[in-house]
Amino acid sequence: MESTKNFNVRNERNLTMLVDFYEFTMGNGYLKTNMGNRIAYFDMFFRKIPDEGGYCIMAGVQQVIEYLSNLSFTDEDIEYLRSKEQFSEDFLNYLKDFRFCCDVWAVPEGTPIFPNEPLITVRGPAIQAQFVETMILLTINHQTLIATKASRICRAAGTRPVMEFGSRRAQAPDAAIYGARAAVIGGCSSTACTISEQMFGMPAVGTMAHSWIQLFPSEYESFKAWAEVYPDNCVLLIDTYNVLRSGLPNAIKVFKEILIPNGHKPKGVRIDSGDITYLTKECRKILDRADLEDVNIVISNSLDEFIITDVLREGACIDSFGVGERLITARSEPVFGGVYKLSAIEDREGRIIPKIKISENEEKITNPGFKKVYRIYSKKENKAIADLITLEDEEINKDETIEIFDPVFTWKRKKIRDYYIKDLRVKIFDKGKLVYTCPDVLDIKDRAKEELSKLWPEVLRFENPHHYYVDLSEKLWDLKHELLSKYSSTYVE
Amino acid sequence: MESTKNFNVRNERNLTMLVDFYEFTMGNGYLKTNMGNRIAYFDMFFRKIPDEGGYCIMAGVQQVIEYLSNLSFTDEDIEYLRSKEQFSEDFLNYLKDFRFCCDVWAVPEGTPIFPNEPLITVRGPAIQAQFVETMILLTINHQTLIATKASRICRAAGTRPVMEFGSRRAQAPDAAIYGARAAVIGGCSSTACTISEQMFGMPAVGTMAHSWIQLFPSEYESFKAWAEVYPDNCVLLIDTYNVLRSGLPNAIKVFKEILIPNGHKPKGVRIDSGDITYLTKECRKILDRADLEDVNIVISNSLDEFIITDVLREGACIDSFGVGERLITARSEPVFGGVYKLSAIEDREGRIIPKIKISENEEKITNPGFKKVYRIYSKKENKAIADLITLEDEEINKDETIEIFDPVFTWKRKKIRDYYIKDLRVKIFDKGKLVYTCPDVLDIKDRAKEELSKLWPEVLRFENPHHYYVDLSEKLWDLKHELLSKYSSTYVE
Repeated sequence: MESTKNFNVRNERNLTMLVDFYEFTMGNGYLKTNMGNRIAYFDMFFRKIPDEGGYCIMAGVQQVIEYLSNLSFTDEDIEYLRSKEQFSEDFLNYLKDFRFCCDVWAVPEGTPIFPNEPLITVRGPAIQAQFVETMILLTINHQTLIATKASRICRAAGTRPVMEFGSRRAQAPDAAIYGARAAVIGGCSSTACTISEQMFGMPAVGTMAHSWIQLFPSEYESFKAWAEVYPDNCVLLIDTYNVLRSGLPNAIKVFKEILIPNGHKPKGVRIDSGDITYLTKECRKILDRADLEDVNIVISNSLDEFIITDVLREGACIDSFGVGERLITARSEPVFGGVYKLSAIEDREGRIIPKIKISENEEKITNPGFKKVYRIYSKKENKAIADLITLEDEEINKDETIEIFDPVFTWKRKKIRDYYIKDLRVKIFDKGKLVYTCPDVLDIKDRAKEELSKLWPEVLRFENPHHYYVDLSEKLWDLKHELLSKYSSTYVE
Repeated sequence: MESTKNFNVRNERNLTMLVDFYEFTMGNGYLKTNMGNRIAYFDMFFRKIPDEGGYCIMAGVQQVIEYLSNLSFTDEDIEYLRSKEQFSEDFLNYLKDFRFCCDVWAVPEGTPIFPNEPLITVRGPAIQAQFVETMILLTINHQTLIATKASRICRAAGTRPVMEFGSRRAQAPDAAIYGARAAVIGGCSSTACTISEQMFGMPAVGTMAHSWIQLFPSEYESFKAWAEVYPDNCVLLIDTYNVLRSGLPNAIKVFKEILIPNGHKPKGVRIDSGDITYLTKECRKILDRADLEDVNIVISNSLDEFIITDVLREGACIDSFGVGERLITARSEPVFGGVYKLSAIEDREGRIIPKIKISENEEKITNPGFKKVYRIYSKKENKAIADLITLEDEEINKDETIEIFDPVFTWKRKKIRDYYIKDLRVKIFDKGKLVYTCPDVLDIKDRAKEELSKLWPEVLRFENPHHYYVDLSEKLWDLKHELLSKYSSTYVE
């Protein structure tokens, strides 16, 4: 495998200017009002799991790292900004000499994640910590969305491999490339997107389209030609004219007359349209009767976790799936609503002043302060019991009983004994210096699988999953409610 | 404006390897079976308008052109392909010396388009015409989807400007960049995506996020600071704490005490959460009573054409909209299902042999042959009456009465007099040479607006729009049915 050899070649894009314009107007404003160098803390988190699911799979950290590592402004960028006639020369000079110097913590890719957890925290000069908002959100929102959808689809497929086939319906070139990456993190075995193999080292696969068959005078001749070119990789697309009357008989003829007599093993047939359950059951019967039990049946119609679950329950005979548009766009819920919110600033003496964002909608109220996230596992079953968000300077005594409680229904309390606990995040930048090495995509995929196995089956359900606990430490809860009452006492009717 | 100055700098990406792997396996197969240089015709078209709408807006041609112009394989690409151990050295040499030499026709961007029309036709050696499938589909599918959604949203907003604010929820970096481009083609006045202004010359805009307000000791101080930095571009975000009790009073105070006395005109207030109708009506009343009639109200919650229509009907007082995730992902229907199908090949003497793709689902049967698309307008009202797909060599006598008929219910016929007719497509590549100049985005936007004005209001409806006629010429209809009966007679039960 070439693996990530070409990695740098393909990733040298400077996306610094892919930024909401207001990051500039604010940056200029921070500088002018002497707020530019105030140390600020921003948390990236999300509030709702797509598809009413029970978990998400973190993805996109590698691309956040690439973005942050490449942050710099060209002379053309500065010229362009100057032409907007809104920015001071001080600010333009600051950008010209821009050197990223923030601390960044992130949940590693492949980790199951839950609402309200700070997935990424950026600590640094307000002007910088603010600026990186757009791309951190874009990157994590996109890849986490697709990895999560892929995880659901692959779990529906069980042990059957799922191939990512969606490039042509992806929302822009990068959406195909990074979508394929996220799909593999979520569990896909391979992708049709060639460049993704070059960039990330996960296998690219593919055989033929209907046009191959149409270009030849007959379906049989097209299959025969294919078998001659690819005797050891012969998966024939059998639905161009009629699966049972034409495609399958022609495929069997080619398998039996051309491949087998010459010592080659026919690999499979692919069906891209029609009634999956009926057609695959019929095909399986006919193939088995023809002593072609080892010929796989591949399905690649518009598939998602719901259709796959249905057809498998109906007894469809499928060996692997190609999944396209519904995965690469997360069609059932194509928006992952991650947000990036200020959680604290430091005063001039370096003391942390926690900040809260109030909302009439209580779910939109943020968790203040500089925080940590822990996952608590039961030692006995090795399953995750709950996550716990604490303030950064809290000590967790790992040997004692730990009491957690619901942040809304605070009387709901639970004492946990015999547990072990893990800090969910790693530091990825230290004062702007990269201090973390991203694992390979296939390792991240393994990690996701391993971590998912530590969730209770109830959390993994597609419908009405059990709500996984994300609790606040007593100290954080107190701080939050102190700030809340401070603000709510401000207004007098 | 910098306009498209940086264009080339930002677009030099070689996306040749962003391709479904099966384009390679087929290409290698075509070459090996002497089909590689057979002239093939492929049509790109779609079957269904998203959101049950009445029309789509063509977009993405410029990026298709960039892709086709940059097609070439690096030594690393060849090395990578060799490592897959599936391709002949002949094929790898072919790729090494790849020179795009196809003819390409396309519907210009900004044109209203309808199902089953060949939007793009590629004519050239099978190996090449096949290869470009993935990126042509990806590009046109994505941008047409977003331009169409934007067109709907902007029509709902009426004369009020709509700003594209979705970068952070876009599906990957390019989806933000090209999504912003498509959004402006569809009618948006501006975007928050800075790089899109650099690349395409459409205005990037933005003011402040909630974090600006949170970073200061109080909301009032944050507004005051903003007004001092941007006295002539003062749009204040008033929903950080409480719109009516805190945000608006503080904004008015700043407008009246700081801006107006110093000769500056307050620009507006922005609301990003809460009940839009109630809050904007109340804000308008309060602003008007404070003699701030010229202060605009900007809304930027989760918006789409349906919510905008609703709140305006309820009398919400809104001057402009910022639209995010529901536009940039086309959330209500995030897949544009364009396909790319073989429609003909040439025999060794250059005669065109039409090809058809059969399906049990009659809507999926393709239109065979090398075709043209015309739009027929009534001279009197200057409105589009129908589109007509013909074979390429058909003559349309533009002076005579023209009879069109429904391709399914063929007794439904209509004689049209007093019309004019336009070829809907232009040639963009001639034997691989670019022969077309893309208009600027803002010109494309104007074109879309102009062309939409030529559709009957019934076609523009959001709900139950009138079905716009796309008819086949008698000759094309006959050819299609001749091929259909040929295939359907093949199978005997």
